[in-house]
Amino acid sequence: MSLLREGMLVNGHVYSTGTGQVGSENAPKKGTLTSRRSLVITGCLALVITPCAMVDARSSLASPAAPAGVTMKILVLGGDGYLGWPTALHLSEAGHHVAVLDNFARRGYDFEMGVDSLVPIETLQARIRVWHELTGKEIGCYIGDLTDADFTYHVVRDFRPDTIVHFAEQRAAPYSMVDRKHAVYTQINNVMGTMNVLYAIAEIDPDIHLVKLGTMGAYGTPNIDIEEGWIEIEHKGRKDRVLYPKRPGSFYHLSKVHDSHNIEFACRIWGIRATDLNQGVVYGQQTPQTARDDRLATRYDYDAVFGTVLNRFVIQSVLGEPLMVYGNGSQVRGIIEIRDTVRCLQLACENPADRGDFRVFNQMTQSLSITQMAETIARVSPEKVTIEHLANPRVEEEGHHYNVVHSGMVELGLEPHLLSDTLIESLFEITKRFAHRVRREAMIPTIDWRRASSLIGL
Amino acid sequence: MSLLREGMLVNGHVYSTGTGQVGSENAPKKGTLTSRRSLVITGCLALVITPCAMVDARSSLASPAAPAGVTMKILVLGGDGYLGWPTALHLSEAGHHVAVLDNFARRGYDFEMGVDSLVPIETLQARIRVWHELTGKEIGCYIGDLTDADFTYHVVRDFRPDTIVHFAEQRAAPYSMVDRKHAVYTQINNVMGTMNVLYAIAEIDPDIHLVKLGTMGAYGTPNIDIEEGWIEIEHKGRKDRVLYPKRPGSFYHLSKVHDSHNIEFACRIWGIRATDLNQGVVYGQQTPQTARDDRLATRYDYDAVFGTVLNRFVIQSVLGEPLMVYGNGSQVRGIIEIRDTVRCLQLACENPADRGDFRVFNQMTQSLSITQMAETIARVSPEKVTIEHLANPRVEEEGHHYNVVHSGMVELGLEPHLLSDTLIESLFEITKRFAHRVRREAMIPTIDWRRASSLIGL
Repeated sequence: MSLLREGMLVNGHVYSTGTGQVGSENAPKKGTLTSRRSLVITGCLALVITPCAMVDARSSLASPAAPAGVTMKILVLGGDGYLGWPTALHLSEAGHHVAVLDNFARRGYDFEMGVDSLVPIETLQARIRVWHELTGKEIGCYIGDLTDADFTYHVVRDFRPDTIVHFAEQRAAPYSMVDRKHAVYTQINNVMGTMNVLYAIAEIDPDIHLVKLGTMGAYGTPNIDIEEGWIEIEHKGRKDRVLYPKRPGSFYHLSKVHDSHNIEFACRIWGIRATDLNQGVVYGQQTPQTARDDRLATRYDYDAVFGTVLNRFVIQSVLGEPLMVYGNGSQVRGIIEIRDTVRCLQLACENPADRGDFRVFNQMTQSLSITQMAETIARVSPEKVTIEHLANPRVEEEGHHYNVVHSGMVELGLEPHLLSDTLIESLFEITKRFAHRVRREAMIPTIDWRRASSLIGL
Repeated sequence: MSLLREGMLVNGHVYSTGTGQVGSENAPKKGTLTSRRSLVITGCLALVITPCAMVDARSSLASPAAPAGVTMKILVLGGDGYLGWPTALHLSEAGHHVAVLDNFARRGYDFEMGVDSLVPIETLQARIRVWHELTGKEIGCYIGDLTDADFTYHVVRDFRPDTIVHFAEQRAAPYSMVDRKHAVYTQINNVMGTMNVLYAIAEIDPDIHLVKLGTMGAYGTPNIDIEEGWIEIEHKGRKDRVLYPKRPGSFYHLSKVHDSHNIEFACRIWGIRATDLNQGVVYGQQTPQTARDDRLATRYDYDAVFGTVLNRFVIQSVLGEPLMVYGNGSQVRGIIEIRDTVRCLQLACENPADRGDFRVFNQMTQSLSITQMAETIARVSPEKVTIEHLANPRVEEEGHHYNVVHSGMVELGLEPHLLSDTLIESLFEITKRFAHRVRREAMIPTIDWRRASSLIGL
């Protein structure tokens, strides 16, 4: 029996048994339900087509649970990732029609570095199938690379989203600082992928709302308060509202700055609508949706490259390793819990920016120094915890000013979860359960900002 | 007889008849004279190896004419272009040891659009030969593409410059706005080429001074005065010196903003030295060096894509065509004459930035509105001139504030040539001599900022 079924998309073509033809396009009108799930395969990875992706092309998408008028078609780029996957589930549960897109680059980085998520994760296709089994809701699936413009245009034409949530970028500062190739890869992947998305929106449907993930790290640590994307300046007796000046701390962070400039320009010339979310460091591993079934789990990274600081500290404390603080630890980070991330994404989608508007939110809920984070973990941990200071491999200021405006999301309705004992306790449990999977040496930072080339995967 | 001679570089390898071996590297110590001229061939164009490039590999570089201590080894990236070539000659005449690098992309754009420089130009190899014949001075020559990192590293290792002058970017805003492919090409070519140069400096010799061409268009038209790259901001009672906020007007201008952010970061983490030159619109076609011989002429572009506004107005007036003003003409541009450009480059090279310093100059000498430029040409032209207003194909403000600080270059010693009748008269003469070469329809703007895709080459 052939794996191909009627209506499936393979390499950008609709497969049809009825006519024996392969059509090049199938764009249902926006706002109507598409009667099939799509699978598009293209891009850089050789993929085994798993049965889960081969669901009946004629089965309908889940009926909306959200109140009429709120239901949207939302395409989640990078929907296989740490945050993309929980966001897709959260939006699906909220009643939206969701499709995910991924090229599995993130899974590829694991192979490159010889690490893996501490919590085992299923294939994207299995995850989607489990979600369908548990909830009756369907999530569309497109496999491919945003730097492949034909693919990107095809997906936008096929799914016809109201909103595109864009997580599909290389997201680790240390990874971008490995060497020239990793820096160039990060900027091409991130900036050109986003460029293709912008053009697809402009050419196919300028009404699509782009919700783009950025980073608080794009601002650097200025000696003035950090506003939400824009700032009113008075200079030599004149005033203007300008993009907040950025001074980012890695080639990754720079890619987000480049994205923001490109997106602001696209809003200005084409009148498209965009929300730029400068997100703080995310911690936590579970949302109500991912917690339903082990097979819905999202990634939980502990290594020095992709592990975010709070998650890494929890893992180190469980393993009885010292918490590794870079430098004197006075560096401050904006942070946010994973449950707030998915809620912020929902709020951004359901309250779209106006046409032509480049809207920016600082997506974080509180600021803590690295030392404060370490001390919090040390206080709550059931194990005896020590803190160790390493020479800071990054070039960044210590003892700097850090006061961030982040009221936009609260005005939209966010009720922040602040760092609490409860959350950390649940993280300890998860960590203990999978502690045997840790490769301890992967927690040692080997990528030095001051060197143009470092070794990884040791 | 073989075209290959001992010591030549072909595809990054030193050709040696003495040993029969091809070595992979030959890096003379910095500050010493290299005893051969180099030819490296790589990259995207198929090239015919011309005899001019095959000069005796054992001939020495010209002896320095400049005072001891001032003589530098300067590598001019984009040394075949409108400004790169005159800059190379100017620096050579000033006694510096100059090599040029080019991939001939600019000549390729002419084929794509079916246009050509109004003034005929020789091949790069012929130009270099003529300069040697007339002055006895040699200019080294590297043919290849900066996005090819192996090539870029090789050239830096081989020539060992004290200073790298970087003109090698796609420089036309309209070209970047043709469609998605041209936008992506422009940003990859410009930003990744520069990234490779930054890494080559960091890895081979962090003491090299990068002198990078940017554009006044990167600033946009803020309602506050434009400072030189950095601005002191007071905000909520606190102060900082930050990068001047940019709001550029095309994907080309955005590429320069991305470059600047990447370069500032490289200075910060690796302690390299860079000068960013935000240049105004350049006009004029001759420098004392290019005027010596017709075969040393630089480009003179009149088309709507690469022709800069003042040069285009001169050509239109000579042809009896109306001067085409986009919109109401109240848009203001910073401008600079070509003789001041080459002098600014010399000043920047001879007064390098400090290690770790990201130094910025606004390389322009005066501000004029488009209407003022048209009126100046109309007043001086021997022909009867009319002015025609077209719907502005760009998205830009009219009637905006524009007050630019540009004192840095004057403090280094620049004595500006302001727009004068004399200069324009010489431009009229050049234009008349070659007016028969104009393709008139190429002066009509066909690239519309508001559309995501426009046609060219019609």
